[in-house]
Amino acid sequence: MQQETYAALMAHVRQTVALSQISGLVGWDQETMMPRGAATQRGEWSGAIEAVIHQRRTDPRIGDWLAALEGSELDEVAQANLVHIRRSYDRNTKVPGDLAAEIARVTSVAQGVWAEARRNNDFAAFAPTLKRVLELRRQEAAALSDGDDPYDALLDDYEPGMTGTRLDQLLGNLRKGLIRLRDRIRGTSRDIPALSGKFDHDRQIALAREMATTFGYDWNRGRLDKAVHPFSSGSGDDCRITTRVDEANPFDCLYSTIHETGHACYEQNINRDFMLTPLGRGASMGVHESQSRIYENQLGRSRAFTGYLFGRMRAHFGDFGVANEDDFHALVNAVGKGYIRTEADEVQYNLHILLRYELEREMILGRLEVDDLEEAWNSRFERDFGFAVDKPANGVLQDVHWSVGLFGYFPTYSLGNIYAGMLHAALRREVSDLDDALSRGDTSAATTWLRDKVQHLGGLYEPAKVISRAAGQAISEKPLLAYLEEKYAAIYDL
Amino acid sequence: MQQETYAALMAHVRQTVALSQISGLVGWDQETMMPRGAATQRGEWSGAIEAVIHQRRTDPRIGDWLAALEGSELDEVAQANLVHIRRSYDRNTKVPGDLAAEIARVTSVAQGVWAEARRNNDFAAFAPTLKRVLELRRQEAAALSDGDDPYDALLDDYEPGMTGTRLDQLLGNLRKGLIRLRDRIRGTSRDIPALSGKFDHDRQIALAREMATTFGYDWNRGRLDKAVHPFSSGSGDDCRITTRVDEANPFDCLYSTIHETGHACYEQNINRDFMLTPLGRGASMGVHESQSRIYENQLGRSRAFTGYLFGRMRAHFGDFGVANEDDFHALVNAVGKGYIRTEADEVQYNLHILLRYELEREMILGRLEVDDLEEAWNSRFERDFGFAVDKPANGVLQDVHWSVGLFGYFPTYSLGNIYAGMLHAALRREVSDLDDALSRGDTSAATTWLRDKVQHLGGLYEPAKVISRAAGQAISEKPLLAYLEEKYAAIYDL
Repeated sequence: MQQETYAALMAHVRQTVALSQISGLVGWDQETMMPRGAATQRGEWSGAIEAVIHQRRTDPRIGDWLAALEGSELDEVAQANLVHIRRSYDRNTKVPGDLAAEIARVTSVAQGVWAEARRNNDFAAFAPTLKRVLELRRQEAAALSDGDDPYDALLDDYEPGMTGTRLDQLLGNLRKGLIRLRDRIRGTSRDIPALSGKFDHDRQIALAREMATTFGYDWNRGRLDKAVHPFSSGSGDDCRITTRVDEANPFDCLYSTIHETGHACYEQNINRDFMLTPLGRGASMGVHESQSRIYENQLGRSRAFTGYLFGRMRAHFGDFGVANEDDFHALVNAVGKGYIRTEADEVQYNLHILLRYELEREMILGRLEVDDLEEAWNSRFERDFGFAVDKPANGVLQDVHWSVGLFGYFPTYSLGNIYAGMLHAALRREVSDLDDALSRGDTSAATTWLRDKVQHLGGLYEPAKVISRAAGQAISEKPLLAYLEEKYAAIYDL
Repeated sequence: MQQETYAALMAHVRQTVALSQISGLVGWDQETMMPRGAATQRGEWSGAIEAVIHQRRTDPRIGDWLAALEGSELDEVAQANLVHIRRSYDRNTKVPGDLAAEIARVTSVAQGVWAEARRNNDFAAFAPTLKRVLELRRQEAAALSDGDDPYDALLDDYEPGMTGTRLDQLLGNLRKGLIRLRDRIRGTSRDIPALSGKFDHDRQIALAREMATTFGYDWNRGRLDKAVHPFSSGSGDDCRITTRVDEANPFDCLYSTIHETGHACYEQNINRDFMLTPLGRGASMGVHESQSRIYENQLGRSRAFTGYLFGRMRAHFGDFGVANEDDFHALVNAVGKGYIRTEADEVQYNLHILLRYELEREMILGRLEVDDLEEAWNSRFERDFGFAVDKPANGVLQDVHWSVGLFGYFPTYSLGNIYAGMLHAALRREVSDLDDALSRGDTSAATTWLRDKVQHLGGLYEPAKVISRAAGQAISEKPLLAYLEEKYAAIYDL
């Protein structure tokens, strides 16, 4: 009887998972293949399939099935599925249908308003829309939080089990360490060479494909295409990646491909028994980001691997103005001075995130209003970066996230970096001769370790458990700081 | 009240149409972009979305809405929508859910069995599967036909309003005329040149794009990709075409592109008010085929247009062994001797179809069983073509259709040609200087006429009404025969 109830629930959920994967394909197609003229029609498609998925996720039978099954004797996998299904069911039923529809409607329009405002460097033009988005998300958080911290209710959707209080500690410590390190670097005067020449489009794509292969991407279950903003999508046997090409700067194509390869390999390496179930996806946004970042940074920007990459770059592009491996390593890790998060180095990237986290947490808690946001951004940017924002497109208007209602999402980027730091420390302890392998372009020991310790598990455990089990310690920012200090001490001779 | 009921019905239908368009995208992706390893997962996707669509099409509220609206005072467009929705609702509710699911299950496996049997030239290996498919489709036809002709019940899904009795007349007359013409051609001895050289892949694609543009394809609302079997898909603002490339034979790429352009332009040119409604698609398979065939044959293989095309081929490929426009025209229209339907010339193509129609009608009516099918095919092939089938892959196993349960579909190919003949006769009467324009590669007068007379109407009228209104006469095979006789008399000097 219990097994039959569980089978009925999982048959329903399996079909819903399949539909949400189709919705993912519709999104992938929109960014890569869709004819320009099809945008309006595509909007109707997205609305239709999302409505069906929402309906299935709030099907009252799920509540009955869960009530009959919770607390009963089921195996670990079944229990984990029930936890995921319960979380989804509660979230989707707690938020009134009218509110969910209004959020969908407003955020679908808001992105265009934001893009226009950014183009015109006009925060005031975006403010009324952002107010409405914020108001709706506050209402949603209130509906979800049952009187507890409303920010936690939003965060929980991206990083189950994490809280604002815990983030304040982790990220507060991280900020101190990063600012100290960045200021030490600013005190030095290492001469870093510049790239010269034009880097042919097709050769960049060829090198990007080569790098995806080098990091273990399974082409039989994926593909690479171009997109304006690189992303990975899909799961199971269909995990696709995208990249973009700037003929003046090959590192954009190269490292975004390695980054997306990390995301895609995570999905490709999940236990196949979990396919088309709630466990058949990465454990959280933070754990996902830990994989993309460790592939991109701790492995891809290591001294050992960049030595190998320097040779591959020369093979593809000939002489490009960089004399040797050490200079090349310094170049791909250079700490610069910029406004833009997505272009930031490993030291300052998290400072960008922490700024956004601080602001969005205050907004959701009602301590900061949209009318004061631009000033708050600018003053804190100057505090953390030591220079002033020159225009809104380089400041408060630079990211799309808030326009589409993503509050609680930004900190998962920094959590991903913290997790990557922890995993990297354990990897270094447990795998010998890693640098020797990386210097030959062999990532298999590292990626196999990550596959077995993290990726294979999919959504079986909560994020903190996945990471602390693999790293052999509780969640902490210290390994990331230690890694950065050691790395940059070598580059900048600190 | 009535307007509200109609609005509720159409809101439901509109979302179902959007979902079926998504299902179309999933199919397009499967044939063009999907990684090889994703086939099993893709099967689950298709099952999930088709189940949702079926559920929505059989929603009992549709029956209530229709009952409240039928016979009431609504405008022509609304009435036409009700006719489509009624047909879909009755078809989907008359067939028991178990039977529909079993058909989906069996046919999804049967295609693989057929492909394997064809590879091995082993009809016996396919026969048990085909028996099961036939049995299920007979059951479906019985459920749909209420005691009337069961073949008509299947045919009605592809060509509403057409009947087997009417087809027997139309296609019987067509066969006589075609065999007479083919035998006259066989009695002649025109020397037709052969192609020589290799036709570069990228240049073929460039020429295919040029031809799609020449025939009015709107690239802002479509795209061209490669597929093993060329097809067009989508509707409204997202109508995609595919082609394939054989470097020894550029006509495969070229004419299949023009053919698919015909299908896609039909969809692109439908009245935009009909988007995401049942009227926003072509009127039937036969009317669809009339557009693809008139683009490909009556226009694309005309003496006037091939004169232009000869120049474009020379511009792309240089000298390819054909001396002049007349020889080129004879070459692209040559009547050969072959087993394969898809490679057949305009004269013999319909003979291939008529053979299949005859056999499948007898199978559905219970007058022919699968055990006798191979022999029946072979004897009738020799009767119609004058030589014997050499192996099953060139005979009874050559087409995929029956394996996936498509009984009642084949005759729509010939109906499309008959319709194209009728439309072409009217077009010649009504548009002057057509050959002059075609010889300059200007198809606009012809495609505009087709857009206004046929394509713009979408599914507003039944197929026979669409064609007879545009052609100014009742459905008849005579214009097609007259066109072929005149054309081939000139080529073969009959």
